[in-house]
Amino acid sequence: MSNTAIGHTRWAIPDGYIPAWGHGPEPAMTSHEGLSILNTGDREVEVRITLYFTDREPVGPYRVRVGARRTNHVRMNLLKDPEPIPLGTPYSSVIEADAPVVVQLTRLDSRQAENALLSVVPFAG
Amino acid sequence: MSNTAIGHTRWAIPDGYIPAWGHGPEPAMTSHEGLSILNTGDREVEVRITLYFTDREPVGPYRVRVGARRTNHVRMNLLKDPEPIPLGTPYSSVIEADAPVVVQLTRLDSRQAENALLSVVPFAG
Amino acid sequence: MSNTAIGHTRWAIPDGYIPAWGHGPEPAMTSHEGLSILNTGDREVEVRITLYFTDREPVGPYRVRVGARRTNHVRMNLLKDPEPIPLGTPYSSVIEADAPVVVQLTRLDSRQAENALLSVVPFAG
Amino acid sequence: MSNTAIGHTRWAIPDGYIPAWGHGPEPAMTSHEGLSILNTGDREVEVRITLYFTDREPVGPYRVRVGARRTNHVRMNLLKDPEPIPLGTPYSSVIEADAPVVVQLTRLDSRQAENALLSVVPFAG
Repeated sequence: MSNTAIGHTRWAIPDGYIPAWGHGPEPAMTSHEGLSILNTGDREVEVRITLYFTDREPVGPYRVRVGARRTNHVRMNLLKDPEPIPLGTPYSSVIEADAPVVVQLTRLDSRQAENALLSVVPFAG
Repeated sequence: MSNTAIGHTRWAIPDGYIPAWGHGPEPAMTSHEGLSILNTGDREVEVRITLYFTDREPVGPYRVRVGARRTNHVRMNLLKDPEPIPLGTPYSSVIEADAPVVVQLTRLDSRQAENALLSVVPFAG
Repeated sequence: MSNTAIGHTRWAIPDGYIPAWGHGPEPAMTSHEGLSILNTGDREVEVRITLYFTDREPVGPYRVRVGARRTNHVRMNLLKDPEPIPLGTPYSSVIEADAPVVVQLTRLDSRQAENALLSVVPFAG
Repeated sequence: MSNTAIGHTRWAIPDGYIPAWGHGPEPAMTSHEGLSILNTGDREVEVRITLYFTDREPVGPYRVRVGARRTNHVRMNLLKDPEPIPLGTPYSSVIEADAPVVVQLTRLDSRQAENALLSVVPFAG
């Protein structure tokens, strides 16, 4: 790898939704959203996540760090500061980093007996 | 967040299809398509959705508003004006906004006993 | 809608695979890949699809037409000329159009009792 | 097809994860990740894959070749050199090629009785 960090410093994910219930062995099969953040650069990156809702002002920033040449798969359900993300509630997220990163959002929905998956590489801009 | 609204003013989604039947508790498990629209800007945005079909002229615009710093998760099944979207029928959609927004389309297909999911960040251009 | 056609004239989809078997009522639940092509322009578009394989030369073009202001959801399983797409075989596809279109590929996999879905907006370039 | 190879020479996939178990007939229904690489160009391409982890330095390169006008659907589970990819472990991957290719990542998760799918066209940059 060259030393050039790959990615962008701002990403947006319109469809956020953490199902309120699930089936199967926890924690692997718990309904959740995972935000994967790849930092190919040579210094730690600070990431700020802001959440948007349908009927109130944005909440955040949630702060996450990703080490140099590391990936961080953030389970959105575990973010607690400034407040937990409400379950069963539509939201959107904007991810801002102080150096380029690459981001992907994956949802595991186990509300029915068999799990379903979705994943997107979000909008960068 | 800076005051710069993120996104584009025109998006296109070739694969639209609302399954005609479903399983599981309604409305969460009803087969549906959800169009998530994020407006990070400081004023309300007006969105116009035009639908394309295989054998007739486009239908629209359907009008949706997204408040400043808000997200709107539009359930396509509920759009009624100028006409409901026919179930079990292939269509495409073009989303135009009077200011930048970010868009994502997610389909929940519960035609069989266990739901399946797909999601895309559409083409912006 | 303005008269400007949206999209690109060349798209590439690396992951093609039509599962060789399925479950559930046909044809809706037959394992298949659907290539959705949206033409927002004011004249019919001719689309040529070329398929790439792991161990032989490309096959094509398969020819598809999409009317002005129409969408065409092409079921890949039904393409027969110059030859049917082999089932259970990895392939890739390149879609070229004589005017801009927007493309999306969706796979329904019903090899197990409950269907799974994937969908991507392919690479444009 | 023109002689111009389609794609980019560097791609990044933040969300890598090979489920540690599965159900159904092997190998088709084994939980796995498949990396599809399309080379539309007129000479063989050498691809180097570097893996990133949460708590240790990157591993690689894994080397893969894709023939002229060929596609290669690489099953990540089968990469062994310099070391197998650990199961049930979050990772990210960066794909670098010595000529343009197009890349797509698909995961089949059969941890529960019915398989789920996700697929993304990764970030190119």
